[in-house]
Amino acid sequence: MAKLIALYKHPENKEEFDEHYFNVHSPITAKIPGLREMKVTKFTGSPMGGEPPYYLMCEMIYDDAASLKAGLSSDEGKASGKDLMGFAGKLVTLMIGEDSE
Amino acid sequence: MAKLIALYKHPENKEEFDEHYFNVHSPITAKIPGLREMKVTKFTGSPMGGEPPYYLMCEMIYDDAASLKAGLSSDEGKASGKDLMGFAGKLVTLMIGEDSE
Repeated sequence: MAKLIALYKHPENKEEFDEHYFNVHSPITAKIPGLREMKVTKFTGSPMGGEPPYYLMCEMIYDDAASLKAGLSSDEGKASGKDLMGFAGKLVTLMIGEDSE
Repeated sequence: MAKLIALYKHPENKEEFDEHYFNVHSPITAKIPGLREMKVTKFTGSPMGGEPPYYLMCEMIYDDAASLKAGLSSDEGKASGKDLMGFAGKLVTLMIGEDSE
């Protein structure tokens, strides 16, 4: 299994962000071929107190690294990337990962 | 479901880190009461190229926020926290999150 992880810093306007994220960006992303599952986590705090450095995380799960790469290179993957850069280019960190153990 | 997410920056010595992480830290953490699941992801790259900002992520899943809090406050939780600060205090970011949608 291979994962694309998107970590979003806190947006200035959380309502506007959520509106676009859940109603526009997620549906575009969900169409990417080979994408098995999307899991969204909203950060609510930190065990040490204080505001967490990120607002939201999305894990996008593919069968393997080749499927992930093919998905991102597809027309649907490019549409998702273009939308992402438009509404959250300055907020997002993208990383590719593999399950360990 | 509630999650504790640990994001680790790249250690200077990855072999030493892995040795401690998988053989010492994970077994201590696995004993925390209420912990349902631990999922470890190793980051291998970024879709834009370049080194990802983090080395490893661990997701620790609890039934709810109260179970997570109780787990962290338990003797086992404190032992895990103490071990964490000893070997990776400067590398780790901890965040509490909840599943969205």
